Amino acid sequence: MLSLLIKRIEPLNEEAVADAEVRFAKLTKPPGSLGRLEMAVSQLAGISGQPFPHIREKVIILMAADHGVVVEGVSPYPQAATEQMVYNFLNGGAAINVLARHSGARLIIVDMGIAARPISHRNIVDRRIAQGTNNIARGPAMTSGQAEQAVSAGIEVVEAQIEKGLDIVATGDMGVGNTTSAAAICAAITGENPEQIVDRGSGLDDEGLQRKIASVRRALLTNNPDSSDGLDLLAKIGGYEIAGLAGVILGAAVHRKPILLDGFVSTAAAMIAATFTPRVKPYLIASHRSQSKGHTHMLKWLELTPLVDLDLYLGEGAGAVLIYSLIEAACKLLTEMATVTEAGISQKELEENS
Amino acid sequence: MLSLLIKRIEPLNEEAVADAEVRFAKLTKPPGSLGRLEMAVSQLAGISGQPFPHIREKVIILMAADHGVVVEGVSPYPQAATEQMVYNFLNGGAAINVLARHSGARLIIVDMGIAARPISHRNIVDRRIAQGTNNIARGPAMTSGQAEQAVSAGIEVVEAQIEKGLDIVATGDMGVGNTTSAAAICAAITGENPEQIVDRGSGLDDEGLQRKIASVRRALLTNNPDSSDGLDLLAKIGGYEIAGLAGVILGAAVHRKPILLDGFVSTAAAMIAATFTPRVKPYLIASHRSQSKGHTHMLKWLELTPLVDLDLYLGEGAGAVLIYSLIEAACKLLTEMATVTEAGISQKELEENS
Repeated sequence: MLSLLIKRIEPLNEEAVADAEVRFAKLTKPPGSLGRLEMAVSQLAGISGQPFPHIREKVIILMAADHGVVVEGVSPYPQAATEQMVYNFLNGGAAINVLARHSGARLIIVDMGIAARPISHRNIVDRRIAQGTNNIARGPAMTSGQAEQAVSAGIEVVEAQIEKGLDIVATGDMGVGNTTSAAAICAAITGENPEQIVDRGSGLDDEGLQRKIASVRRALLTNNPDSSDGLDLLAKIGGYEIAGLAGVILGAAVHRKPILLDGFVSTAAAMIAATFTPRVKPYLIASHRSQSKGHTHMLKWLELTPLVDLDLYLGEGAGAVLIYSLIEAACKLLTEMATVTEAGISQKELEENS
Repeated sequence: MLSLLIKRIEPLNEEAVADAEVRFAKLTKPPGSLGRLEMAVSQLAGISGQPFPHIREKVIILMAADHGVVVEGVSPYPQAATEQMVYNFLNGGAAINVLARHSGARLIIVDMGIAARPISHRNIVDRRIAQGTNNIARGPAMTSGQAEQAVSAGIEVVEAQIEKGLDIVATGDMGVGNTTSAAAICAAITGENPEQIVDRGSGLDDEGLQRKIASVRRALLTNNPDSSDGLDLLAKIGGYEIAGLAGVILGAAVHRKPILLDGFVSTAAAMIAATFTPRVKPYLIASHRSQSKGHTHMLKWLELTPLVDLDLYLGEGAGAVLIYSLIEAACKLLTEMATVTEAGISQKELEENS
């Protein structure tokens, strides 16, 4: 079923891209002077098929889950912090709440499998696969069936939001220990040495860092995942929220919706999605380069250049939601600026470079 | 008079900076995970003296003027484009209009000396010094008196806006040929070779680039400005809008208002302001790193790290206004996020790094 769905992902609409570029060239500004903003809007045009894309309905899907690997001492936070942060999201007190309010984005909080009892709250989407994954340093994270179930849940979650109205979706994650899983995915897919990928995360000391590197090594050695098989990667070294976000990404691409990636964990999910099918890649926009040193390896593998670099290391989708404003502004530039003809600006006297 | 005013620029309020940092450390997020945003807010706290700064009244002051050096063939655009773009600003069709509307910023358009008749429009601030500067490649741009008059005009323009309500001011410029003047200022102050600073601007061809480099060299050789004397630099190789923006920057700093710098020309004005007094530096925020290769030399000299890099090359203040949203969001994070105590999140078990 998943493989059938994936085949429905189409290439970008090159006509819409060209139309956007033609209009950019006519605006009252030197050619190319809006830099990366022009490129982002052209991409949005190709994704939506609309030459002058509009961003109105902005969604952020934040998926939370727990990770059995925390018993290896890979995080300075206790596992209970995942559940507590989910309550913080529901109460509106986390960074992502502030940023979602600021940017007018709809925040969807999904429990993909936290290690706690189900949370009864009208604003949580319950797609729990289990109470946390197994310890990837000692065996597989989950069964293949669970991996597929989690990806399908992600697809359904994003499709429900598309039904309500969605012009762009940002990905967010919460899960103590999930940067260990993301690092293992990055190492497996890129072939990079774990030492080049793993860092201190939310504030590990030297010993913690060594434990985290060793856990990633052991996860790869114990499980030996097939780096070309997204489901195998998820089942052996993944996480429920990473699998769910991979589903969100695939589902959005099927429906021609742009995906704004947050940092390290979101980008691991995008790598998984691209392992399912590289056709998802043109639908991805990297919002920011995270403080996490492994993030750069991920972005390189995905051939993505992030829009900004603010040294963030938070997750939650914070970096993605933060730049919604830039993307909206970029779209408005294309539609609202006057053309040279409209404004009666002199043509360039020297036309060699235009 | 100018030297008296400059002495009134005070250092940042370190107590407010410390208070902001203490609250950031208590929020429901790993320490330092908001990266550059935390640093920006702490700076705003120090500037305003308020531990939890608010950004409500956002202003962009866009100064336009013409440059005699255009006769050397340093721009692909005719001089008339300056006046035409001012009309475009007044009609709401330029990039800066779209971005100012998007971010809710008050756009102030100032004629500092365009080579045209005065524009009669209710939305233009007329502070014309003359109809364009003289050709800096053949002699001084203006008299010392005119330079001082232009700086004073900038101070008065920003003070009028502060009276109306201003929490932060962005700088913007328009003037065909003004990157030649900005490059000369950068070369004079940093001692860098003009070839390392001058680039193609709005789309010069190879010959145009050589003409522009030669013009900067000749401007420095002919005028021999004193690189430690802001007024001498302005009079010999400056421009009316650059002088005016230097005044805006000095005036804002006197009144403890943060200055959000746009790209190459705005940053040249900041260098001039810092030559008047280095005490202005803590009040500066670099919004973006411009496509212009000389901009990096300027930022290094000013010891500023820009918040974003979007490969812009526009001027008008576009890059600065674009990131108003990020700065507002950063301020909201400090005030609106829950603290760990409020949210009942577990304290870190490993406290070594916090």
